[in-house]
Amino acid sequence: MMNTILNHRSIRSYTSEPIHPEMLNRIIEAGTRASTTGNIQLYSVIVTQKEENKKRLAPFHFNQPMVNNAPVVLTICADLNRYNTWCANRNADAGTDNLLWLLNATIDASLFAQNIALAAESEGLGICYLGTALYNAPEISEALKLPKGVIPITVITMGHPASTPPLTDRLPLEAVMHHENYTSNSADRIEALYAEIEALESSKQFVADNSKANLAQVFTDIRYKRADSEHFSTKLKHMLQDYI
Amino acid sequence: MMNTILNHRSIRSYTSEPIHPEMLNRIIEAGTRASTTGNIQLYSVIVTQKEENKKRLAPFHFNQPMVNNAPVVLTICADLNRYNTWCANRNADAGTDNLLWLLNATIDASLFAQNIALAAESEGLGICYLGTALYNAPEISEALKLPKGVIPITVITMGHPASTPPLTDRLPLEAVMHHENYTSNSADRIEALYAEIEALESSKQFVADNSKANLAQVFTDIRYKRADSEHFSTKLKHMLQDYI
Repeated sequence: MMNTILNHRSIRSYTSEPIHPEMLNRIIEAGTRASTTGNIQLYSVIVTQKEENKKRLAPFHFNQPMVNNAPVVLTICADLNRYNTWCANRNADAGTDNLLWLLNATIDASLFAQNIALAAESEGLGICYLGTALYNAPEISEALKLPKGVIPITVITMGHPASTPPLTDRLPLEAVMHHENYTSNSADRIEALYAEIEALESSKQFVADNSKANLAQVFTDIRYKRADSEHFSTKLKHMLQDYI
Repeated sequence: MMNTILNHRSIRSYTSEPIHPEMLNRIIEAGTRASTTGNIQLYSVIVTQKEENKKRLAPFHFNQPMVNNAPVVLTICADLNRYNTWCANRNADAGTDNLLWLLNATIDASLFAQNIALAAESEGLGICYLGTALYNAPEISEALKLPKGVIPITVITMGHPASTPPLTDRLPLEAVMHHENYTSNSADRIEALYAEIEALESSKQFVADNSKANLAQVFTDIRYKRADSEHFSTKLKHMLQDYI
């Protein structure tokens, strides 16, 4: 178990070998063993395997090649619709049209997703998360015929790995682990936490290739620009207006 | 690995045996191997082990006994502060004060949390998630001295299990697994999906004990009332006003 967790890397290329339906069911079933708010299971997964449907989804993920190349594309959704419908059919007022339940469902769906990712890896498969599900959630919803209250929050592409890239670096443990109180991010602390990652040859190359002054600017000026984040947030706010 | 996933149950009572610091570090380190947005690691965990600090947190979790009884209480947070500070110190505009990044960080923190939960279970520990972190996020933030952009999203209590409760039921797999398109929740489908759980002796007892007409009404009228959800959502909206 620990080995599976510690050996995770995002696998972006897959062999043509399909995933056996029984294996896929076993993996999704493992997903459902994750903890969930009040045992309500505020999530769903849409399994895309047909070529034409992958082709339809690909542009919403900016044509990242994993979408067309993976045998299975899983769109993981926060799902309030099923619970709401059950309640409505039982003359019960679900009361989930608010921020608390949007976040409950987002967390539920994420725990479900991570169980799926680890279960797949323990079966020898490779996976890659696509954060782009949130960027184009309204378009993906339409393509997958998601009803009200079902929100795509992440995508996992899955298949038999065609390669095994090296593990990626992480910040030192003390960056994320705080004892009793949060350790304030003083200038000294930030220097210490980011020293190693900034000193990597690959980071320096990344900065040089993009003609930026430092690694942070590559993130903010190239990869994750404010204007893009605000654009996608506006779309999300419109989609989620009943909850926020 | 699959066994660990399939055997998960929430453990709510713990022996007095402490968790060895090396084991705890190993578990949190395993958490950091989860996928994360752009490898930015938009999360932190606050480890509470001191008795007086557990006592201070307990009321915010409605005095659920796990908070005082677990040797370790982990408050898992969405953390934009560290990235924002790094960027600010590098003359870079993080641009994370929006809904997209709030959700990115919530998902990042949830994947981190689920890795921690499974790593702990694979070490023989028992865990319980507390959804109450979101209910009283502002008060918990103050108690743990969380800076702007650090939001408690869930809590995991952890310790050596004092008992092993039975596995809890889940909806049938088809409730959450959809092929190619979302299967609409027709009245017939809802009847089929909930038949088993509604027929359980424990569900019937639950309905009778609460003098309700059906199981859904126990959820909506007793456990998760609209008025409570709206109250906690109002607090959350105030806390998260820069992001929504």
